[in-house]
Amino acid sequence: MNNPTNDPAARSFVAVASDSHFPIQNLPYGLFRREPGGRARIGVAIGEMVLDLSVLEAAGLFDETVLAGRKVFSAERLNDFLALGAESWTAARRRIHELLRNDVALLRDDAALREQALLPQQQVEMILPVEIGDYTDFYSSREHATNVGVMFRGEENALMPNWLHLPVAYHGRASSVVLSGTPIVRPKGQQLPPGAETPVFGPSRLMDHEFEVGFFVGPGTDLAQSIAVDEAPSQIFGFVLVNDWSARDIQKWEYQPLGPFLAKNFGTSISPWIVTLEALEPFRCAGPEQDPKPLPYLQAPNEWSYDIRLETWLKTETMEAAERIAVSNYRYMYWNICQQLAHHTVSGCPMAPGDLLASGTISGPTKDSRGSMLELTWRGSEPLRLGSGEERKFFEDGDEVILTGWAQGEGYRVGFGEVRGRILPALD
Amino acid sequence: MNNPTNDPAARSFVAVASDSHFPIQNLPYGLFRREPGGRARIGVAIGEMVLDLSVLEAAGLFDETVLAGRKVFSAERLNDFLALGAESWTAARRRIHELLRNDVALLRDDAALREQALLPQQQVEMILPVEIGDYTDFYSSREHATNVGVMFRGEENALMPNWLHLPVAYHGRASSVVLSGTPIVRPKGQQLPPGAETPVFGPSRLMDHEFEVGFFVGPGTDLAQSIAVDEAPSQIFGFVLVNDWSARDIQKWEYQPLGPFLAKNFGTSISPWIVTLEALEPFRCAGPEQDPKPLPYLQAPNEWSYDIRLETWLKTETMEAAERIAVSNYRYMYWNICQQLAHHTVSGCPMAPGDLLASGTISGPTKDSRGSMLELTWRGSEPLRLGSGEERKFFEDGDEVILTGWAQGEGYRVGFGEVRGRILPALD
Repeated sequence: MNNPTNDPAARSFVAVASDSHFPIQNLPYGLFRREPGGRARIGVAIGEMVLDLSVLEAAGLFDETVLAGRKVFSAERLNDFLALGAESWTAARRRIHELLRNDVALLRDDAALREQALLPQQQVEMILPVEIGDYTDFYSSREHATNVGVMFRGEENALMPNWLHLPVAYHGRASSVVLSGTPIVRPKGQQLPPGAETPVFGPSRLMDHEFEVGFFVGPGTDLAQSIAVDEAPSQIFGFVLVNDWSARDIQKWEYQPLGPFLAKNFGTSISPWIVTLEALEPFRCAGPEQDPKPLPYLQAPNEWSYDIRLETWLKTETMEAAERIAVSNYRYMYWNICQQLAHHTVSGCPMAPGDLLASGTISGPTKDSRGSMLELTWRGSEPLRLGSGEERKFFEDGDEVILTGWAQGEGYRVGFGEVRGRILPALD
Repeated sequence: MNNPTNDPAARSFVAVASDSHFPIQNLPYGLFRREPGGRARIGVAIGEMVLDLSVLEAAGLFDETVLAGRKVFSAERLNDFLALGAESWTAARRRIHELLRNDVALLRDDAALREQALLPQQQVEMILPVEIGDYTDFYSSREHATNVGVMFRGEENALMPNWLHLPVAYHGRASSVVLSGTPIVRPKGQQLPPGAETPVFGPSRLMDHEFEVGFFVGPGTDLAQSIAVDEAPSQIFGFVLVNDWSARDIQKWEYQPLGPFLAKNFGTSISPWIVTLEALEPFRCAGPEQDPKPLPYLQAPNEWSYDIRLETWLKTETMEAAERIAVSNYRYMYWNICQQLAHHTVSGCPMAPGDLLASGTISGPTKDSRGSMLELTWRGSEPLRLGSGEERKFFEDGDEVILTGWAQGEGYRVGFGEVRGRILPALD
């Protein structure tokens, strides 16, 4: 169903611009309210509209699928749907696709139902789509790990000895994952000024972003169970863009020996629409060659990277429009999603529906494809010169950071929309 | 109400042995089922009985407190009660204490209600008392951090430069927190054998425990808010014992640069009864002197350590009874709970009711007061010689580890019961 536009299955009766991120080939899931304080509803983005699945479910339109009677689209979060697993995800996608096709009359010609079920995205308030039990952040881009390593440990020791053998990761803070648009208040914390022997306390001076792509897990596992690398795809629902905001000065002082803590737990922003694994299937591709060959439990049977263009934009307070500051691609990731999930669970760590696993900063081979200001400005030594005449080493209060990304098909895009966040001054 | 036994308020009509962990001075909260698969109920331990608060609530016995109409004790987890905050916690404790007093007739003389509300702990199944949103693990014992530092980096660099300035911590895995009694399957993972250049994969050979004490947070904070060090006590509900199971070989190979991951996420066991801050108030005491003086945001106004005896026991498969292998005390902790919570939130990290913050391994100044096998056997170089004639460097399959702890009052104990877990062989 991801064929070019002559195929009637490839077009919806809902108008979709050719550069829209949400054509019928995409059908990403999100959570929204029709009015402030109203109840949360599960929807799918189509063009500039959102399709209210709770309305379709109440109208019985999922009764002839494996979802019949389960009422997962009447829930106030996506976790129950994620818990059902891949067979149900496929059935739902097939049904929603059918209902939106230009050559299928069922919804297209039912004006009353259409009126109820379809509403402009502009009119709704998006909210966090799932209740995130646990959030894990990987460190899976070789270029990023190398850049950081060179800056902090020199060329010789850039990659730690373990890096090429396993997808390094740390547990993040689920409570600080917020939706795109949530303002990010500059965090306070301890920093060690250059040359000083004792730390000072105050607002971070080195506010940074990290461009990541995360995936949501379902149905999950119990304690002591593992997910084999070739079973991983059936446990991965879909992807969002992630901005893992980072306070570099706090991080540098605190991170030894147990890893980043306050430097990362003041806000991690995600995009509102979950783009499914199935929607991205046409864009699956090979990742970088892995040498040394991973241990058997990490040997993925297929190509499990994706060709997704990733763009970072910045809008300072003086700018009228945002300016693009980096272009990268998800395919640069060294460790793929199957390896990440297999590694994470090989210890017996339990996974729950709605757990979020993020890639870590994705940087590419060129200077303008780096996924953080730390790398783009090489620790501030090469400030970005913006069209506005301004310079940036790291972000300043009032700066808005916008991450966007899409896979380009023939005549259509499967996109993520965007994740944006504006930095507010530290609180008194 | 924590006075010696001549005070009628200090005795319950429920029989309590003098070495019981659960006298009327304690009143810890837990979650239980009356029968397998039955609904979860909130209870309080008293002697060898459990008091079913959902029964008391249904009987209207909380109607004359601030809890009236809130029905928090009819919930199937403690989170709603934790969300209410300190005023409600105090009111509930006062009321439960009153109902259990030997000189108060209300419950004592109502045989029908007593029959309904009080049942033997032996007959119930305890379950995880709260839904843990996020789990954080500190590293707050100076003796532990020093021991580990000496072993891995030598005497000169034992403590990292940041250690005396902030309570180091990392985000743990909430999904792997399990209740006492849950078997712990030996995890698999990558290890670098001594002298090898490439890692191998297999079951951990260096299974260890970490004796910790954790606390549950409520009512919590929103993104960007902080909890000041002197407000922290009003946000801390109570404590449990924590066994932070650790796979030392996996940890050593994986932990650079982002901290422990698989080495810690295959199971973290907690004791079933939450001992409240109020119950432990008579045992509050000074912790170690802090030099250098902490930054102002970490200066706690009072003494916030606790005199709690902590004992580690081991039962191998050949033993008829468990053998004590360590005795320590919670008061050795360098960073206290107020400092931990203030530090954790100073970045604006949100806290939710039911978040768990653990102390990190608690070790004392003497060899037999160390909180992990890593330290007790000094990386296996000084094996423990057990009464059974066996030796242990780390734990073997079939070993059961039991942690217990209590504060000793005059004629009574405020105790935690125990957290136990038996190690099962790795799965094929």
